[in-house]
Amino acid sequence: MENLNGKPTNTWFNSSETAGKVITCRAAVVYGPGEPFVVEQVRVDPPQKMEVRIKILFTSICHTDLSAWQGENEAQRAYPRILGHEASGIVESVGEGVRDMKEGDHVVPIFNGECGDCIYCKREKTNMCERSGVNPFKTVMVSDGKSRFSTLKDGKPICHFLNTSTFSEYTVLESACVVKVDPAAPLKKMTLLSCGVSTGVGAAWNTADVKAGSSVAIFGLGAVGLAVAEGARSRGASKIIGVDVNPNKFIKGRAMGITDTINPRDQEKPVHEIIREMAGGGVDYSFECAGNLDVIREAFLSSHEGWGLTVVLGIHPTPRMLPLHPMELFAGRSIIASVFGGFKGKTQLPHFAQQCMKGVVNLDEFITHELPFEKINDAFQLLVDGISLRCLLHL
Amino acid sequence: MENLNGKPTNTWFNSSETAGKVITCRAAVVYGPGEPFVVEQVRVDPPQKMEVRIKILFTSICHTDLSAWQGENEAQRAYPRILGHEASGIVESVGEGVRDMKEGDHVVPIFNGECGDCIYCKREKTNMCERSGVNPFKTVMVSDGKSRFSTLKDGKPICHFLNTSTFSEYTVLESACVVKVDPAAPLKKMTLLSCGVSTGVGAAWNTADVKAGSSVAIFGLGAVGLAVAEGARSRGASKIIGVDVNPNKFIKGRAMGITDTINPRDQEKPVHEIIREMAGGGVDYSFECAGNLDVIREAFLSSHEGWGLTVVLGIHPTPRMLPLHPMELFAGRSIIASVFGGFKGKTQLPHFAQQCMKGVVNLDEFITHELPFEKINDAFQLLVDGISLRCLLHL
Repeated sequence: MENLNGKPTNTWFNSSETAGKVITCRAAVVYGPGEPFVVEQVRVDPPQKMEVRIKILFTSICHTDLSAWQGENEAQRAYPRILGHEASGIVESVGEGVRDMKEGDHVVPIFNGECGDCIYCKREKTNMCERSGVNPFKTVMVSDGKSRFSTLKDGKPICHFLNTSTFSEYTVLESACVVKVDPAAPLKKMTLLSCGVSTGVGAAWNTADVKAGSSVAIFGLGAVGLAVAEGARSRGASKIIGVDVNPNKFIKGRAMGITDTINPRDQEKPVHEIIREMAGGGVDYSFECAGNLDVIREAFLSSHEGWGLTVVLGIHPTPRMLPLHPMELFAGRSIIASVFGGFKGKTQLPHFAQQCMKGVVNLDEFITHELPFEKINDAFQLLVDGISLRCLLHL
Repeated sequence: MENLNGKPTNTWFNSSETAGKVITCRAAVVYGPGEPFVVEQVRVDPPQKMEVRIKILFTSICHTDLSAWQGENEAQRAYPRILGHEASGIVESVGEGVRDMKEGDHVVPIFNGECGDCIYCKREKTNMCERSGVNPFKTVMVSDGKSRFSTLKDGKPICHFLNTSTFSEYTVLESACVVKVDPAAPLKKMTLLSCGVSTGVGAAWNTADVKAGSSVAIFGLGAVGLAVAEGARSRGASKIIGVDVNPNKFIKGRAMGITDTINPRDQEKPVHEIIREMAGGGVDYSFECAGNLDVIREAFLSSHEGWGLTVVLGIHPTPRMLPLHPMELFAGRSIIASVFGGFKGKTQLPHFAQQCMKGVVNLDEFITHELPFEKINDAFQLLVDGISLRCLLHL
């Protein structure tokens, strides 16, 4: 196959010196739940068929990394492991069959891949993927069931994480989990599209489809909740109510489009009653970004009877079931969850990146801290303490 | 205001001999939970402002009447009361301000009214109504907080039921709860549009929006479940799986479009596993018409990951919450409830009646029994025993 200039485009070729060879580089390895990350030398195998090896330039830390690090879910405790899933970088080499990327391309890894061939990828309304979708229990590559990482000191395999494992100078991903972006786009900011901002903005755009003039309530003003606010603001929502127990979040929130704030600790009444009073009976859309089951109920009840929609974004590692009575559904409220903001990553993210560059969505406020890679333990502490939104690590 | 022939049309006038007077007639009155209906003489006051008095010709019995009669929900226990909400009849007289109906019009009462003026009526996506929507706790007319019924023997007021109270030769309704239908349509069959058939067909058409070629599972094959089947069949669903513990339901079910049947009592595996095998991973839409919480879970899990939609139609008088885990929502399944099939009664039912007359939906199979009004207790027994789908009472 040739392009218009007569040059071959779809051939598997790599010109880098490292292509086809094992790379030894630094990675932050976790050896047990909550144990400090060890920045050490690891070996990264070359990409196999339909895989891509990328050089990570920036990575940041999301709450999903935090809960995996803390081993909140017993089934997730696989060690040693390289965590990290929000990042940006440059293609170092590609494996056999990869035709949509080549060495030097600017890319963003996505934890929820898009193979393009499965029943989900072929269906418009879902961004699930049978082969490369999000799967916190997956620790190896799908093609051969093996890891591409091993420790330098004893050659022991290191588990992959969320299709991405970005806390490493080099990582190997299925090509379904790598999105090529415009080389003119600043990679630092593109890191945000890898998870948090896409998840929040996409929940407002794709999952809820927020309309201009509508009302929105957001429970939990971390990076995802603020990205929901940014998504709702960019759609023209006229009232965006932010709810958080940490009033420091409100300052940033107001810069991202939040028009009203509620701190539940300052209130005697349940939050849903206050929101109903503020928003003429309830908001059109509510978003749960707190990972708290009781907050789901407040979010649900704060939406308007007849058409209110609640979107669940938080992760709920609890044995408790949904605190909703079946008859409550008859009041016309509904509830759905959103994964990666409903974005089909490979298809839709390049366009979303362009929109960000045009200023449709403002990415400036999300990166609150920057640290060198070796300070990763400090970066985790900033998130644990609720100080950072996103701390960018430089590799 | 005059019509094209120069005759007044929108004036409040009634030419009947009974207009403006109290009517004494027969009604079936219930005096306590589960007590036999007493067919006795009652007084029916004239309709007040924006009310309509209709002569009931046919009424049938739905499970909601059954549960109200049995007093399943303590708050519903208001006596004496005239139950019944599925019926058809003729306008006897109208109250002040009623301009869309007049004496002699063929009508169908609807328990979920449409005032046309409230925020819900003005919104496309809901069929709730602030003033005249379904309300099982309402026992009086909204205009003056009084009943239009009283006993002949001691003049005691009799409670209204579900905006309709059709177990009476005459009844008074808010005009928002009366739908005028084509006088050419057979009133016997129009009775079915008053509740069960509209609820089931509408759930498939309006709430789920079933597409041609899709797959459907229906849990509970009473009149509502079979109406869902009829709605799905008329939309071109290619696989319609009927689930019921009573295999007698399958005979009728196959006549209404059901292509596959499952009796959970014949199965060792959970029903959702069988349905997933039968329908390539799960059905596109599942409908819960059984009023059983565990069935909700089976219905939910039998729908396909990524896009499956479960519609709850059953009434759940249980203190238990929804047996779904919040993380299960992330598999892309969703759940909503449907009231009166999502139909805006006054706006949409006349057109639906025409579609039924054209054979788009087949009403022939629903009326399984017919009895004179005074045999109402026998008619309830037929429903309790699972023998009848709809038993039509002739007044």
